[in-house]
Amino acid sequence: MRSSNYLLATLKETPSDAEIISHQLMMRAGMVRKLASGLYNWTPTGLRVLRKVEQVAREEMERAGAIEILMPMVQPADLWQESGRWQDYGPELLRLQDRHQRDFVLGPTHEEVISELVRKEVSSYKQLPLNLYQIQTKFRDEIRPRFGVMRSREFIMKDAYSFHTSEQCLQDTYQRMYAAYQNIFNRLGLEFRPVIADTGSIGGNASHEFHVLADSGEDAIAFSDSSDYAANVELAEAIASKAEADPATAEMTKVATPDAKTIKTLVEQFGVAAEKTVKTLIVHAANEAGEREGFVALLVRGDHELNEIKANKLAKVASPLTFASEAEIRAVIGAGPGSLGPVNLPIDMIIDREVAVTSDFAAGANEDGFHWFNINWGRDLAMPEVADLRNVKAGDLSPCGQGRLDIKRGIEVGHIFQLGTKYSDMMKVGVLNESGKHQNLIMGCYGIGVSRIVAAAIEQNHDEYGIKWPNSMAPFQVCILPMNMHKSARVQEVAEQLYAELQGAGFDVLFDDRKERPGVMFADIELIGIPHVVVVGERNLDEGCVELKNRRSGEKTTVSIADVVAHLKA
Amino acid sequence: MRSSNYLLATLKETPSDAEIISHQLMMRAGMVRKLASGLYNWTPTGLRVLRKVEQVAREEMERAGAIEILMPMVQPADLWQESGRWQDYGPELLRLQDRHQRDFVLGPTHEEVISELVRKEVSSYKQLPLNLYQIQTKFRDEIRPRFGVMRSREFIMKDAYSFHTSEQCLQDTYQRMYAAYQNIFNRLGLEFRPVIADTGSIGGNASHEFHVLADSGEDAIAFSDSSDYAANVELAEAIASKAEADPATAEMTKVATPDAKTIKTLVEQFGVAAEKTVKTLIVHAANEAGEREGFVALLVRGDHELNEIKANKLAKVASPLTFASEAEIRAVIGAGPGSLGPVNLPIDMIIDREVAVTSDFAAGANEDGFHWFNINWGRDLAMPEVADLRNVKAGDLSPCGQGRLDIKRGIEVGHIFQLGTKYSDMMKVGVLNESGKHQNLIMGCYGIGVSRIVAAAIEQNHDEYGIKWPNSMAPFQVCILPMNMHKSARVQEVAEQLYAELQGAGFDVLFDDRKERPGVMFADIELIGIPHVVVVGERNLDEGCVELKNRRSGEKTTVSIADVVAHLKA
Repeated sequence: MRSSNYLLATLKETPSDAEIISHQLMMRAGMVRKLASGLYNWTPTGLRVLRKVEQVAREEMERAGAIEILMPMVQPADLWQESGRWQDYGPELLRLQDRHQRDFVLGPTHEEVISELVRKEVSSYKQLPLNLYQIQTKFRDEIRPRFGVMRSREFIMKDAYSFHTSEQCLQDTYQRMYAAYQNIFNRLGLEFRPVIADTGSIGGNASHEFHVLADSGEDAIAFSDSSDYAANVELAEAIASKAEADPATAEMTKVATPDAKTIKTLVEQFGVAAEKTVKTLIVHAANEAGEREGFVALLVRGDHELNEIKANKLAKVASPLTFASEAEIRAVIGAGPGSLGPVNLPIDMIIDREVAVTSDFAAGANEDGFHWFNINWGRDLAMPEVADLRNVKAGDLSPCGQGRLDIKRGIEVGHIFQLGTKYSDMMKVGVLNESGKHQNLIMGCYGIGVSRIVAAAIEQNHDEYGIKWPNSMAPFQVCILPMNMHKSARVQEVAEQLYAELQGAGFDVLFDDRKERPGVMFADIELIGIPHVVVVGERNLDEGCVELKNRRSGEKTTVSIADVVAHLKA
Repeated sequence: MRSSNYLLATLKETPSDAEIISHQLMMRAGMVRKLASGLYNWTPTGLRVLRKVEQVAREEMERAGAIEILMPMVQPADLWQESGRWQDYGPELLRLQDRHQRDFVLGPTHEEVISELVRKEVSSYKQLPLNLYQIQTKFRDEIRPRFGVMRSREFIMKDAYSFHTSEQCLQDTYQRMYAAYQNIFNRLGLEFRPVIADTGSIGGNASHEFHVLADSGEDAIAFSDSSDYAANVELAEAIASKAEADPATAEMTKVATPDAKTIKTLVEQFGVAAEKTVKTLIVHAANEAGEREGFVALLVRGDHELNEIKANKLAKVASPLTFASEAEIRAVIGAGPGSLGPVNLPIDMIIDREVAVTSDFAAGANEDGFHWFNINWGRDLAMPEVADLRNVKAGDLSPCGQGRLDIKRGIEVGHIFQLGTKYSDMMKVGVLNESGKHQNLIMGCYGIGVSRIVAAAIEQNHDEYGIKWPNSMAPFQVCILPMNMHKSARVQEVAEQLYAELQGAGFDVLFDDRKERPGVMFADIELIGIPHVVVVGERNLDEGCVELKNRRSGEKTTVSIADVVAHLKA
């Protein structure tokens, strides 16, 4: 491709609404242009990268035995009513009506459509397992689209869906897809981690996210420093720091604490360590029928955070998790939220694992203006129900049993789920199995955010001059940069010759034939991040050479014209 | 690909709602499945064909100098308000609102979005010409989607848009795209014709459609039997059959025709030739300001049809063309619609070119129950305004001056337009030109119905057993069909060996490894239309041979196992 026949569309200025580096660089490198909130045009350089990501995903899906199909973006509402998600999905599901006032949605995902296809096409276990995928445009009506294509409304996803008659068969495909995802992210040259994840609104049994590690990531991920264990912080199991509490060292004492309504003020005013305090949170309880009734107290250490996802899953807690109001707390306990604690608490309590191994701790006295100090379980009050209630922190013991946890930020670029029979039960997706009996199918689903990967890769691969593409994702592999070509017939001749040779050798080449100053051309090509630049200039030509510059390493090599192709191939 | 790992999804029965052969065969061959009215899932075999068409279109676009981009499917309404099409487009434009009640459309085409992109990116004539294309999903809310993917609501289109500062530059690109379109359809092995077309609602100056010829086509196309001339029947210019009328041979006579209210009854009851009759149609007229006022008569020969598109373009005719009611006719003329004619007509008339050269003709007397016979222009009444008012008929002189017209049916698969400045004027898409002055850009646009081509190709390439794909579009190039493989280790061994060899040689191969009777396998493979079938059977193996069957020619050849690859390459 010659620059003169191309739309480079590079920008000198960073658009003011681009907050993160990938968004800034995608705008400046001429990869995307905003059409409206969360809607982007992919300009030529961006689309080239996008297509390369698609192709790697496609090849690995085929290798994993998945078969490509293409489902519509516009989906009939009745399928979503069948699955129950017409009600459950929330406003990210864009609903619309056609000219006949029939309801449709713009597909944010395709579980319903694939279920409809498979229940019509597949009738016997002999046709299974089946793993179907597509690379297709999705729409999610994000309330606040941001970070360019990182969180846009219209985006491109690779989504696959597998169907099985046995749990073992699902496990086999799940493992094969897990491996395919690792291959994809490895081939794309990304630093990533598979992470144990929540199954969220899609539902199901087990799930892994694939995160590209980057400081701008929206998710916090907990890693073992000594094993492969990684989990979304929201999901990571929190382990107690010791097997049992240390022995008590002092008598339980009631202390007047008129100005201490938070852990922070208690620590400051009374010199008690935060690790020796416990905070008590009151939430609506569930009765045995699962109905909302009464209240329950959740206790975590003063320096820890309640994990609401974990709390929400407890049988005694009403779902969705709802905190009691101050008025409700006063009515039930007789004290304000700043003075609560386990001693003489008139309602059920569940304490975090770490609270259970804390000795000599301070907590509110359930009486405004008073705390108990030196509380010890067993001695001062009976041990209540214990559960994993808190977010993990860096330095915690890893739940895998090896090492301690570190926490890093990640960008979710892939997500695989064991759905089980959630959709096939709702939508009656079944076959006759080997015993001749009807059986609803076990499903897996597997997504990759193709357009998001482009942004995530930039978060990991850039410097102050621009993008540093991994070879596999680069819009062009090589740029020929002739200096002052329009003043030198010799430069032009060699540049044209190399352009023909490199194209002939199968390289994806940009020939920067613009009438621009070399400085402008260097800046653009570094910004765009083409991995290899062949600089053709008068000085080196005197020795029959050109200069090769490696964008990632910065390394410069002088190579004879005849050796350029061989050198780049190596 | 092994059939056992694939979703063949062939059907024995033809679905009852599939009216045309391509829809029937696409369903039976497992290429598409209907999700809802006008919405189709592309199953694996169909998607393979679709991708091959896409790839040919992409290669020819690149060769023609067009640059690939990707624009969103969801488009903000404000751009459509700017272009005026928010009001003009009609209900095929699906409108929707996002969660913030902002208006959007599902893009049926992308003139507005590309205009927005180019007006922001291009500021100087030096960046031009520019020709940008995409292969992307479109939505048109057809009132009656039908014929499968031939007229679906969601479909895939290749659309390109070019921008120029001079008319000559547009002409150059238009010619290059015209040639690219011919290359695409030639490479796909289709019998097609470029056809002079109406510019329709997209607007602009000149336009060609590309039609695949097929009896099921929705469009009638008029061709010269002696030149390249081809035009949509709606557009084809109708030429008079002679330079001037023959001399009069009889006196004009008033005849009582109480039972002749149509040309047909007049011909039957009075033995007059249909070519010697004229019918008179009354429509609402336009005054000089273009407002609807009064009536005007349009006269065509009794055996000809009024062309409403041509009539609608006449200055004296109110637009949109509206016929007078019988009551209006009686009020103005004093006779019913079956007794109208040019003699003593109290309103203006416009006559067709052929009427102007007709002598001794019969027409109504503007008096119920009476006709004049033997009317002759000049002698009996003055020659009124003459215009091209009728549809052409097979056998008419070609307007190109060479030969006569033939009429065939065609399926429109491509359409190229010279848009001029219609959009750039409305949306202010301009640059500073070489003289440093602001100039709105001249545009071209170029569409191909990628998904429709798949159906159109089947209309042209099928027999009673199924599809006969041209090589370039076939889902697989070769099928290995082993007979009773599960009973013969030798058959299995040779089939596996050929599968590996053919894949190694770069062929797209389907290995039909199902445990099915040979008859079932042959029927499926013929239905799907794979061009080359390698039949591996015990009998031929005795001589070290297999049978090659050509799906298109039906030819069968016995070839030694070692020669299969070479034979298929040739």
